[in-house]
Amino acid sequence: MATPGAGFWSFGTEEGSGDPDNPGTAKAWCQAAQKFTGGISTKLCALLYGDGDKTTETGATKADPGSAARKGACTCSGKPCACQKGELSYAFLHASDLLPASEGEAITLAFLQDVVDILLQYMVKNFDRSTKVIDFHYPNELLQEYNWELADQPQTLEEILLTCRTTLKYAIKTGHPRYFNQLSTGLDMVGLAADWLTSTANTNMFTYEIAPVFVLLEYVTLRKMREIIGWPGGAGDGIFSPGGAISNMYAMLIARFKMFPEVKEKGMAAIPRLVAFTSEHSHFSVKKGAAALGIGTDSVVLIRCDERGKMIPSDLERRIVEAKQKGFVPFLVSATAGTTVYGAFDPLITIADICKKYKIWMHVDGAWGGGLLMSRKHKWKLNGIERYANSVTWNPHKMMGVPLQCSALLVREEGLMQSCNQMHASYLFQQDKHYDLSYDTGDKALQCGRHVDVFKLWLMWRAKGTIGFEAHIDKCLDLAEYLYNKIKNREGYEMVFDGKPQHTNVCFWYVPPSLRNTEDNEERMNRLSKVAPVIKARMMEYGTTMVSYQPLGDKVNFFRMVISNPAAAHQDIDFLIEEIERLGQDL
Amino acid sequence: MATPGAGFWSFGTEEGSGDPDNPGTAKAWCQAAQKFTGGISTKLCALLYGDGDKTTETGATKADPGSAARKGACTCSGKPCACQKGELSYAFLHASDLLPASEGEAITLAFLQDVVDILLQYMVKNFDRSTKVIDFHYPNELLQEYNWELADQPQTLEEILLTCRTTLKYAIKTGHPRYFNQLSTGLDMVGLAADWLTSTANTNMFTYEIAPVFVLLEYVTLRKMREIIGWPGGAGDGIFSPGGAISNMYAMLIARFKMFPEVKEKGMAAIPRLVAFTSEHSHFSVKKGAAALGIGTDSVVLIRCDERGKMIPSDLERRIVEAKQKGFVPFLVSATAGTTVYGAFDPLITIADICKKYKIWMHVDGAWGGGLLMSRKHKWKLNGIERYANSVTWNPHKMMGVPLQCSALLVREEGLMQSCNQMHASYLFQQDKHYDLSYDTGDKALQCGRHVDVFKLWLMWRAKGTIGFEAHIDKCLDLAEYLYNKIKNREGYEMVFDGKPQHTNVCFWYVPPSLRNTEDNEERMNRLSKVAPVIKARMMEYGTTMVSYQPLGDKVNFFRMVISNPAAAHQDIDFLIEEIERLGQDL
Repeated sequence: MATPGAGFWSFGTEEGSGDPDNPGTAKAWCQAAQKFTGGISTKLCALLYGDGDKTTETGATKADPGSAARKGACTCSGKPCACQKGELSYAFLHASDLLPASEGEAITLAFLQDVVDILLQYMVKNFDRSTKVIDFHYPNELLQEYNWELADQPQTLEEILLTCRTTLKYAIKTGHPRYFNQLSTGLDMVGLAADWLTSTANTNMFTYEIAPVFVLLEYVTLRKMREIIGWPGGAGDGIFSPGGAISNMYAMLIARFKMFPEVKEKGMAAIPRLVAFTSEHSHFSVKKGAAALGIGTDSVVLIRCDERGKMIPSDLERRIVEAKQKGFVPFLVSATAGTTVYGAFDPLITIADICKKYKIWMHVDGAWGGGLLMSRKHKWKLNGIERYANSVTWNPHKMMGVPLQCSALLVREEGLMQSCNQMHASYLFQQDKHYDLSYDTGDKALQCGRHVDVFKLWLMWRAKGTIGFEAHIDKCLDLAEYLYNKIKNREGYEMVFDGKPQHTNVCFWYVPPSLRNTEDNEERMNRLSKVAPVIKARMMEYGTTMVSYQPLGDKVNFFRMVISNPAAAHQDIDFLIEEIERLGQDL
Repeated sequence: MATPGAGFWSFGTEEGSGDPDNPGTAKAWCQAAQKFTGGISTKLCALLYGDGDKTTETGATKADPGSAARKGACTCSGKPCACQKGELSYAFLHASDLLPASEGEAITLAFLQDVVDILLQYMVKNFDRSTKVIDFHYPNELLQEYNWELADQPQTLEEILLTCRTTLKYAIKTGHPRYFNQLSTGLDMVGLAADWLTSTANTNMFTYEIAPVFVLLEYVTLRKMREIIGWPGGAGDGIFSPGGAISNMYAMLIARFKMFPEVKEKGMAAIPRLVAFTSEHSHFSVKKGAAALGIGTDSVVLIRCDERGKMIPSDLERRIVEAKQKGFVPFLVSATAGTTVYGAFDPLITIADICKKYKIWMHVDGAWGGGLLMSRKHKWKLNGIERYANSVTWNPHKMMGVPLQCSALLVREEGLMQSCNQMHASYLFQQDKHYDLSYDTGDKALQCGRHVDVFKLWLMWRAKGTIGFEAHIDKCLDLAEYLYNKIKNREGYEMVFDGKPQHTNVCFWYVPPSLRNTEDNEERMNRLSKVAPVIKARMMEYGTTMVSYQPLGDKVNFFRMVISNPAAAHQDIDFLIEEIERLGQDL
């Protein structure tokens, strides 16, 4: 069991450490420590010794930092205390000793710094190929290995630090170069820093009043994304929402309102039966949204796809006509730019022509594929989005590597979101405030409070530039092509669909030796369907890598490899292949 | 303009610093620095000098840390470099030099540590009464003062650190002892640490596979919350959702499904016209949810409130009967435990009797008031919730001080959320995985990806214990009573409603001298309505404090003071009163 951060203020016993009663030595240490750790040491030194270089400080010092310092040497007066030689131990401190507790500043800084140390250690391991991606435990094991229960009494800060370590011990290293399990992988350092800042600022997106910078950055960032989509002047509207499913639901909601604004007051009872269209390979959130919005999943028509997973436009048109003949009202086509499993891009130009012809709202679910708009080499795959799409879902937390969660819904027509969602709650969105109220975003959202999701994207964008995102995306697509070329003719592999992948999705079966050269019948399919789940389970038990599998339509379980991880390299692709073969050859 | 963290590796020129070419001295520094900053120094020292105490390290060291160290002294070869004496400057480093860049570890650790230093400085200022709550700038000023635009080219890490400082310079100090503007205030140190950890773990709640600990903690925490509500054995279901508005929408969605499960497939067209009931003081999200779900805002009947803002049960029953007579189907009553403005608690027991009599789903919106369940002294205000409520919204990010965002929806009947929302997306929620799939939460959610909101609440609960939350809540309510007692008979104050506040909401008009003893007519009301906005604008311009105001019904703009901030003390209440009088006496 690790001892968390016990040594922070433990002076005077270990070899090589100085004498805390000798301020000269301690002061020298402080000066030295500042070279290594920046401003935090300055603050700590000031608190510990009542001096130190205060040039980086502004306004936050106590009247007599020395008093805090002397207390700092032992703050446990009145509590059970194991102090020897001025040692401060977390074993006798609690959350109630942290700020805003009086004299809590030094303890708080020490505690948060120790948490950061734990996080940085974990973060470094994330990138280390010699560590496990996952230390897998079954739910019942995990429940038994540690006491996770909540109690009436507080735990000590020592226990809290231990808990942080334990939590990370069992976490999945989603930034590990060999983690390929989801569309969102990787751990961006600037994004992480931005998320830490967001947590520290701890505010809410609903008004400019309480989130001035973040509200402006959302405005700037959404406009930039609309420019990249290609809408004239970046005009339009949008919002960062809690994930692609909600973004897609927003699109349906706005499309319905655009066609039948009375639905807001009168409900679905007052309008004709609506029908939405999306491909059979589209994300399940289109159906989920239809269920929630009172449209019903039966009113979502699934359009057939070609063998590459792209929507077949002629089938779309046929089904639209059919719906109209039944007296229903087609109101939305949700085309997919980057399907979840195949990574397919629906033919947006042809779909757009159909939407135009039948006057239907065209939504593009680019949650996964939207990122390709950042690449001059690959953006053609979304051609048509600029001219026709009425709304676009685009999740920077997927292909652009922004920490979870960061999903944008972009809308071409300005003002529509506001009309659709506003409830004129004057107690929240006062109309007589002293600044330009157009910056208050709360009333156009479905949410009231809304987490700040923009800052991590914005700061990463500043740090990488558009060209940095482009380089990342191009590299991921190159790696996918490398994988495809490596396995397409390799013994024991069958591709789920032919041809070079359009996105980073590479879908394949691994066929173990016992199933090679066997007759293609039901029994073989049955056995093949069990291969990927067993290999995946073994991967997780060894903890070496993670990749997803699933069935789709009449195709039994196959691996879906995706690459969005900036840490992944050719060696990791090679490793994945070797690992699948190692774990699957006996099946 | 501040110079962010430029000095990290700047050796050899400043007074008192040692000689970097002398490893003996540097090593001594390292040993000293470790005493101040824990494990991070160990790592940095190892990287810089190729040795140092590695006992806290596990598996993350490079084959030859010395080579990184020597490079570390100047990594800018091949770039424009201002190096003197081995100085490393962020002015020549970019995001591409950070991990996963090869040899990026030392730079990354230094960069993140410098970000943390900036955050800790901000965090300390948050609690310092001598600093401003807000450095207010109008949107156009803020857009002009700094270039917030996104560009093709990357910025340097120096610019990124500067940007972090600038962002925080204009941020609202939501943890400041004099920030009372929202229901969510304060900055909890353990919650902050937990949120930093959550960002670092960077995963998604949808399966146990990729978030084993967080999924279990959600299970443990929701069960504990249901126990505290008083449902037998803590049985039931629930989810952490992105805010109270979405939690309330979930409740409507589930209530509708419970009564008419066919709505999921067939939509609202297939079922009778539904009607929901909530008080005229309830949160606007009930109407917003009804609009989104295709029920329509006209089908939300607003029940009259008494003078304290509590729903009048007899009016509820009358309106239910009326709706039934019209052939509509009453399906949901959303009672409020802690209204937004008055902090009123609807009479849950009587409302429950009515819901029972007419077989209507009873939802309790305890987004604001739910926290009082943690207090033995105040939980009686929610009496009835344990026996009757079918669902409860409870936002720990409000009264319990958990960082934004943390909102729970608790449901009494198990399995209903799953049936209501599941879409059987086998490509995401594989049914042949090797662990107990009941822990996969994705298919019961409206969202697909879902941010980890539970860890900050759970870790705070461990650190404070239930008694810690109780003490915080009791203290906030005491402070509200202190304010109430202080102003109820004070010259220049009029209370919006009589009697001691039930929650921490204290609603009052400040009447400036010019309006005292004037006739109570329209002109006076008109002038009084402008007082709070002007005082608020002045507060923001001085930056001294922030408190909300709003009109409600026939009552013109009044101040709504709320206290959820753990940093607030009696002196801050006194300050608020003085400040209102200082800023408003000339009006």
